[in-house]
Amino acid sequence: MLKVGVIGCGAIGREHIKRLSGKLQGSMVTAVCDMYENSAKEAAALVSGSEVKIYTDVQAIVNDPNVDALVVTSPGFAHKEPVLAAVKAGKPVFCEKPLCTTAADCKEIVEAEIVGGKHLVQVGFMRRYDKGYNQVKDLLDSGEFGKPLVVKCTHRAIEVDSSYSTEMAVTDTAIHEIDCLHWLLDDDWESVQVIMGANTKFAHPALRDPQVMIMQSKKGVTVVLEVFVNCKFGYDINCEVVCEDGVIHMPAPSFPTVRKAGKLSTDIETNWINRFIDSYDIELQDWIDHAVKFEVAGPNAWDGYIAEVTADALVEAQASGKIEKIELGETPAFYK
Amino acid sequence: MLKVGVIGCGAIGREHIKRLSGKLQGSMVTAVCDMYENSAKEAAALVSGSEVKIYTDVQAIVNDPNVDALVVTSPGFAHKEPVLAAVKAGKPVFCEKPLCTTAADCKEIVEAEIVGGKHLVQVGFMRRYDKGYNQVKDLLDSGEFGKPLVVKCTHRAIEVDSSYSTEMAVTDTAIHEIDCLHWLLDDDWESVQVIMGANTKFAHPALRDPQVMIMQSKKGVTVVLEVFVNCKFGYDINCEVVCEDGVIHMPAPSFPTVRKAGKLSTDIETNWINRFIDSYDIELQDWIDHAVKFEVAGPNAWDGYIAEVTADALVEAQASGKIEKIELGETPAFYK
Amino acid sequence: MLKVGVIGCGAIGREHIKRLSGKLQGSMVTAVCDMYENSAKEAAALVSGSEVKIYTDVQAIVNDPNVDALVVTSPGFAHKEPVLAAVKAGKPVFCEKPLCTTAADCKEIVEAEIVGGKHLVQVGFMRRYDKGYNQVKDLLDSGEFGKPLVVKCTHRAIEVDSSYSTEMAVTDTAIHEIDCLHWLLDDDWESVQVIMGANTKFAHPALRDPQVMIMQSKKGVTVVLEVFVNCKFGYDINCEVVCEDGVIHMPAPSFPTVRKAGKLSTDIETNWINRFIDSYDIELQDWIDHAVKFEVAGPNAWDGYIAEVTADALVEAQASGKIEKIELGETPAFYK
Amino acid sequence: MLKVGVIGCGAIGREHIKRLSGKLQGSMVTAVCDMYENSAKEAAALVSGSEVKIYTDVQAIVNDPNVDALVVTSPGFAHKEPVLAAVKAGKPVFCEKPLCTTAADCKEIVEAEIVGGKHLVQVGFMRRYDKGYNQVKDLLDSGEFGKPLVVKCTHRAIEVDSSYSTEMAVTDTAIHEIDCLHWLLDDDWESVQVIMGANTKFAHPALRDPQVMIMQSKKGVTVVLEVFVNCKFGYDINCEVVCEDGVIHMPAPSFPTVRKAGKLSTDIETNWINRFIDSYDIELQDWIDHAVKFEVAGPNAWDGYIAEVTADALVEAQASGKIEKIELGETPAFYK
Repeated sequence: MLKVGVIGCGAIGREHIKRLSGKLQGSMVTAVCDMYENSAKEAAALVSGSEVKIYTDVQAIVNDPNVDALVVTSPGFAHKEPVLAAVKAGKPVFCEKPLCTTAADCKEIVEAEIVGGKHLVQVGFMRRYDKGYNQVKDLLDSGEFGKPLVVKCTHRAIEVDSSYSTEMAVTDTAIHEIDCLHWLLDDDWESVQVIMGANTKFAHPALRDPQVMIMQSKKGVTVVLEVFVNCKFGYDINCEVVCEDGVIHMPAPSFPTVRKAGKLSTDIETNWINRFIDSYDIELQDWIDHAVKFEVAGPNAWDGYIAEVTADALVEAQASGKIEKIELGETPAFYK
Repeated sequence: MLKVGVIGCGAIGREHIKRLSGKLQGSMVTAVCDMYENSAKEAAALVSGSEVKIYTDVQAIVNDPNVDALVVTSPGFAHKEPVLAAVKAGKPVFCEKPLCTTAADCKEIVEAEIVGGKHLVQVGFMRRYDKGYNQVKDLLDSGEFGKPLVVKCTHRAIEVDSSYSTEMAVTDTAIHEIDCLHWLLDDDWESVQVIMGANTKFAHPALRDPQVMIMQSKKGVTVVLEVFVNCKFGYDINCEVVCEDGVIHMPAPSFPTVRKAGKLSTDIETNWINRFIDSYDIELQDWIDHAVKFEVAGPNAWDGYIAEVTADALVEAQASGKIEKIELGETPAFYK
Repeated sequence: MLKVGVIGCGAIGREHIKRLSGKLQGSMVTAVCDMYENSAKEAAALVSGSEVKIYTDVQAIVNDPNVDALVVTSPGFAHKEPVLAAVKAGKPVFCEKPLCTTAADCKEIVEAEIVGGKHLVQVGFMRRYDKGYNQVKDLLDSGEFGKPLVVKCTHRAIEVDSSYSTEMAVTDTAIHEIDCLHWLLDDDWESVQVIMGANTKFAHPALRDPQVMIMQSKKGVTVVLEVFVNCKFGYDINCEVVCEDGVIHMPAPSFPTVRKAGKLSTDIETNWINRFIDSYDIELQDWIDHAVKFEVAGPNAWDGYIAEVTADALVEAQASGKIEKIELGETPAFYK
Repeated sequence: MLKVGVIGCGAIGREHIKRLSGKLQGSMVTAVCDMYENSAKEAAALVSGSEVKIYTDVQAIVNDPNVDALVVTSPGFAHKEPVLAAVKAGKPVFCEKPLCTTAADCKEIVEAEIVGGKHLVQVGFMRRYDKGYNQVKDLLDSGEFGKPLVVKCTHRAIEVDSSYSTEMAVTDTAIHEIDCLHWLLDDDWESVQVIMGANTKFAHPALRDPQVMIMQSKKGVTVVLEVFVNCKFGYDINCEVVCEDGVIHMPAPSFPTVRKAGKLSTDIETNWINRFIDSYDIELQDWIDHAVKFEVAGPNAWDGYIAEVTADALVEAQASGKIEKIELGETPAFYK
């Protein structure tokens, strides 16, 4: 039974507390931490049948001997401290994406983990656990389709409010494809470009929407990603892989097909929470199952660093209008 | 150049006159006939660049030496006289469905044609010329699917007015499947049954709608045909053939696929005229090409007789609620 | 925590033991029973971290004060004794389908439950917990489609061996639709008919396959069910509901869409276990959640009786070739 | 009756001769011209029932008083002379694509036509007459989808031989989308870019395949066109238009849907001739109907010039790897 301490008791933190204490196998929540004590207390109350210690200090919960592993669900800018503390304490830590908000901070965690010599850090890119992406990956890995050549993705959302900036099309939205496609293709990023043409009338004045992002991989795969966050019609995630021996298209969530009023139609998922809801369960269960063995099967610290470096280059490309190179350096032997 | 006389100058007659004189190859309209002289004159005026003789008498147009072949588009009850006259005159005749409105009258034409010894009569079941049905037939005939076992069809229309009776679900609607499936399966009908359950609220009081018609073939194929003429959503013709080695589903007319307002949708054809519009051209061109050689490649007089006998049995089955046998007798050698 | 005793330790029994002791919430397995003690011991060994009592006697496990509720997964002919015992002991019992193998035995259980006055019996018709059927039911219940008129289903399986008889097309296969559609439509069965035409070449000599089963409901819905257990191409469950205001088609399991070798294709599920695998979890979790409150939200004893009476009539209809009436009698007030 | 002279008697020329003399309305072929007299004679023999004059000299056929209009189907490099001659003679001319092989030559034709003051030249971009593209255009023009933002196309072919060069991906292949999307979007091209990543193993050594071409329009639409001419699986033309109020996807040619061997599949068109076969008839009929009135409803000389300038820029972009501007100059008032 993995005794988990959860750091960050907001909405996602509470969902994870419920998963870890109720729904999943092999874990229990023994401690929670939030800078607001009330929030931590409310979150602790979600756990029934066992005692949960309340913390407001990150270092303290990490050091609690009754905590085997940490889950970090605080805001992105606050990830570095607890993840680094966990690594230094030699405890497995699951950190929601992004690992950190700068490449330098991600690199610091990578280096600390290498120094420690144990695989401890998993980053919360849940798409790697989505059934559809895994069906596509299975086909790619089967060899039946030859090598991938071009990938076309859409990341469409119904709408965003005025707090969503042009940069967030990269850091909040495309970040999922950055990691997921790197995993799907088993490939690294070489360069990126962003094309921003006409805006939808539904974008608030400061936002460029849609954006077409182009990412070239080291093996020569061209990824074309349409980010369109005011598409109005649904939360529509597509991924098509054009290979030497055929084309693979990821399925969408299934709904009944209906004949009505001159139309044959099926629903498009509109709720982003529902789209990957199953993935969260599978992701955390996988983390639990591996954390007890000091293994990481999901996205690791180096993946978190890759995502951050690539996102930085895309933001630069938004401003420059040019093709920007990705400079990652050699993958450390520790992560190969 | 086949010189055609058209008998019956209503809407369909005029469409055929335009086809025969303008659109198709190898034919010209040299005479038209209608019991209303004005109607005949208006129809004749559709032909430009050549003279068209006007008739009100069926026997007279059939006997016109400047008429090589006849097209009969008068109402069903008036088909027998001109078709029989044409057969006796040894001239090819294309007769819109039904051949005649009673099995006895159809049989009389069959016998006259056998006596004459020339293949002269084609009945206007245009579905045999539809691209979709022919794609299905090609797959069936390829042998790749083994023998057919069960066929499921829908014949759905948006709505009918109060002049449409329960019997017309057979005589006007299912009549198309009666002929078309007999051709598709290369099989004869053994027995029929009609199931009439709950009515749609959109049916007028005297009409049973929908109706499920079941037709067993001599080779043991079970056809389940849903006739639903107030379905409200479209003119929706489906045909699925369940075979030993797979299932074949006929395509619907194609329209763009659209993402909008939470739906992925495509249009369903709503206009029955559009659904088989291409088939009429192909059908008449095929008739012209064969008529000049005194051949019939489409549905012949015996097919017209089969359709009538089968429709009679279905109407009887509507009333009896029982399985009714089809008594066709042996197919004459002339039609084999 | 519901303490469950499992009766019948074969394949399904062991799956349920793993669910009840490992995967689901709110239950633990405290006892198991099998006429073969070794089988019971092996099954008990699947439970880790708590003691499991071994029984070979049905009455003994039912009476064990450390058993709150029973799960019966023995063969169908052996269901009556443990279910009746559980009812008499006032303990909730989940019984895999069928409830019993004769209508009379089902009726006996119904009467015992009414006498006891507590809702205790759930029958394992898992399709009611399938996501697709529930999506269809939600649309039907929304009122947006008016009343249902015709339902078309397929129950296709890849192949069966020579132990599968013509009757089993009803008792093993169609039995699922008998219950599921009765629930989906919220309607009772009025009459049934079976049409057996040409056989597939893949059926063993004593088997009629495919069979078209027709079921009329009291409200006038016509159900057409194709049972085809040697279809060769997949485990293909379809359900289309034709309503006054539109047609609803249940989705199939989703797989990537692939372009390859002149085809656009997607997989059809071939493994029947996978098709409803999620439903088993949801079904048993729902049973646990209600059993602790002496409630039954799923198919109850009366539903089990309906299924048995309807199956009997279908078997009779296979032999007679006629439309057979279903005589259920009035639904007892206890089940309304 | 439009009397047509056909210049160039190869495969396409002969197809057009058959259309103009047999299938379409309002035209007849009165003269044919080919530098090889035998070829011209063979082509003339395809016309039955009227006399056809044979020429080997372009100027002579253009000047023939029994020729009202010209169809030019010689190789692209030989288009300039007959088109210019026709324009100077004041006769309508239909010229297969490309108008000319250099922008300068196209410009010369444009200027000659403006000087003549009559609309005489149509270029053979047949996709504008395709049913699918027109269905998409109708939806765009309906206003129901707001303005277009991003367009995604594929132009995939089964394979090419070693005579097909990297540049031909533009000049032979993408040329169709260059014209068709300019028409579909009612927009002009601003800049282009070509991304050439990993090659398919099926490309011959000197060929870059696939190529991702990016075209920005003046109104800010981003077009992403995948050209993949060794895709192996089919001739697969797709066009998806992402708009402010929804996404429109052009339909593919329809084939039966088949269940077989664990797959639900439908054919992909593999024969490029079949894909747009209907468009050729509609295109030439439209040309005939307008040529008799000295009108051009299809792609005109200016469109031919646009296509050539844009193709030049794409070829430059293939070599430079950069975004290349399109410099068209102001659209002449004559073509507005």
